[in-house]
Amino acid sequence: SSATDTIRATLFPGDGIGPEIAESVKQVFRTAEVPIEWEEHYVGDQVDPRTQSFLTWESLESVRKNRVGLKGPMATPIGKGHRSLNLTLRKELNLYANVRPCYSLPGYKTRYDDVNLITIRENTEGEYSGLEHQVVRGVVESLKIITRQASLRVAEYAFHYAKTHGRERVSAIHKANIMQKTDGLFLKCCREVAEKYPEITYEEVVIDNCCMVLVKNPALFDVLVMPNLYGDIISDLCAGLIGGLGLTPSCNIGEGGIALAEAVHGSAPDIAGKNMANPTALLLSSVSMLRHLNLHDKADRIQEAILSTIAEGKYRTADLGGTSTTTDFTKAICDHL
Amino acid sequence: SSATDTIRATLFPGDGIGPEIAESVKQVFRTAEVPIEWEEHYVGDQVDPRTQSFLTWESLESVRKNRVGLKGPMATPIGKGHRSLNLTLRKELNLYANVRPCYSLPGYKTRYDDVNLITIRENTEGEYSGLEHQVVRGVVESLKIITRQASLRVAEYAFHYAKTHGRERVSAIHKANIMQKTDGLFLKCCREVAEKYPEITYEEVVIDNCCMVLVKNPALFDVLVMPNLYGDIISDLCAGLIGGLGLTPSCNIGEGGIALAEAVHGSAPDIAGKNMANPTALLLSSVSMLRHLNLHDKADRIQEAILSTIAEGKYRTADLGGTSTTTDFTKAICDHL
Ligand SMILES: CC(C)[C@H](C(=O)O)[C@@H](O)C(=O)O
Ligand SMILES: CC(C)[C@H](C(=O)O)[C@@H](O)C(=O)O
Repeated sequence: SSATDTIRATLFPGDGIGPEIAESVKQVFRTAEVPIEWEEHYVGDQVDPRTQSFLTWESLESVRKNRVGLKGPMATPIGKGHRSLNLTLRKELNLYANVRPCYSLPGYKTRYDDVNLITIRENTEGEYSGLEHQVVRGVVESLKIITRQASLRVAEYAFHYAKTHGRERVSAIHKANIMQKTDGLFLKCCREVAEKYPEITYEEVVIDNCCMVLVKNPALFDVLVMPNLYGDIISDLCAGLIGGLGLTPSCNIGEGGIALAEAVHGSAPDIAGKNMANPTALLLSSVSMLRHLNLHDKADRIQEAILSTIAEGKYRTADLGGTSTTTDFTKAICDHL
Repeated sequence: SSATDTIRATLFPGDGIGPEIAESVKQVFRTAEVPIEWEEHYVGDQVDPRTQSFLTWESLESVRKNRVGLKGPMATPIGKGHRSLNLTLRKELNLYANVRPCYSLPGYKTRYDDVNLITIRENTEGEYSGLEHQVVRGVVESLKIITRQASLRVAEYAFHYAKTHGRERVSAIHKANIMQKTDGLFLKCCREVAEKYPEITYEEVVIDNCCMVLVKNPALFDVLVMPNLYGDIISDLCAGLIGGLGLTPSCNIGEGGIALAEAVHGSAPDIAGKNMANPTALLLSSVSMLRHLNLHDKADRIQEAILSTIAEGKYRTADLGGTSTTTDFTKAICDHL
């Protein structure tokens, strides 16, 4: 099939500011003539009895069928005994790797100007097993589960990503000096995969030291691969280095080549519907989605338009210190296309 | 007893650069006329059959008797099946809280100039339980144990510390949205203690978000209290903000008022014996020890002399970009006293 065939992709606009920033993506894709037809699904606050979550069966089926999707922020009501939508999606779609490119945005000043790294997080097990018990009164335990299968799978994804994206080094982040069996198994799997990629430099970095180096000199890192909780922590730390979750893309990779890109920031109910939201994270996530589809020309063009608009600084949303509306900022990006 | 009575304190100079930086502390204490008599113990690479570690029974007894001590860096041979000395000390002496003040050093420039926070880490349980199992081939688990007793104890220490050190806010760091039982219990204990300290503001911050805020705006934090692994990660991150582990003090608090202050950096075998080591972390740790002993005048004087010497910038060791020897830097501090 030629590159101009239409591709169907699922879109979950999500809650709060979700619909506004999703609208921004749709407009940018239209302007850039991206050959994507959105299959939009409402994800709201009705529990689907079959999935026991706020996610409907149809939404899941849509991603399973299209194999590619984009999701906005989703708010899960706290304390109602439901799994968060994010966790449900990861589980149901077996989204085993969470990939977050993180790079300094030219013209948007933070304390760091030389960040250019990718965090790749194992997304299905580890500390997120959900297995917890009260041993006796006043003593509780959580189980962290590490498997050879999931560790090899995410390590393989990380090295393949490094190789196909011109990256030179993969750092496995761990605490195997304390958790010798679990993190030890994770490292063992990374080493096995590393041997198949002699052109990629492989190193192992203890998580506490990794965080110290990240805040001192993030340019020392390239691709980082790690178990679930460390990925949760480090990907947010890295986002902080370049300005926050409003600026960083994220993409989840599942078995069989499924990709679900997502904005990882919150749904910001306080500014929802006010045309104030910054669509950058969702836009850059949509760029990740395009790259996953090998639509690199479109991805390059859109990414450049986003970065140039931010760099020029004339149109910026309130979170970046500007006064632009979501629609003005989006229009500025479209004008760059 | 009057403030000038001599106090006996244990000193473990440690490995590598340990003896040199311990010598620096001894000299500064002599110059400042600190009423401390050191009881020095060699901690080396002979395994004591009774403790099954590189730590001798006599060393432990010395801390137990004196109730206060200072330790330099210790190197544990990797992969010989021995628990690290640090972990053995924590366990044997029941050092339940690790306290690390972290503040920007005037005159020593990093990306941050407004850090002034304290991390207080639960130091005995959590992810450091040592309980790990292979479930089946290719599947391993680690147990994270949280107890009411240890959580209350460290929370109590944190709030008491905040109150007695003029601090206004305690933030409990957690991932209770995922580990609802373990981190949930930790939070429950913090809340219980918080109620007894209405003058201290209490808040709860998810660890991923905490790391993002720390790198964006560390001035938002004051006292942070958290389970073991989060403390390990966040204390190193914070050290990185102000220049690294060579500049940050650490003090471990045990049952019955034991305090073991320590430099948490490595033993730096490459520069050992070369009169190049930076004694700042051990010196500032000795200041923490003096504060624990309520010798605040001496602590203030020594801390001021260290900070002034660094601020003036004339005498700095190689790790801070200078060319001073350990002894020159120490002499400069003594000249300030
Ligand atoms: C909302 C929360 C359950 C989630 C996580 O912990 O994975 C979030 O922090 C993330 O990184 O996607
Ligand atoms: C050396 C290691 C076992 C130790 C820890 O993980 O606690 C260290 O990182 C620390 O912070 O003291």
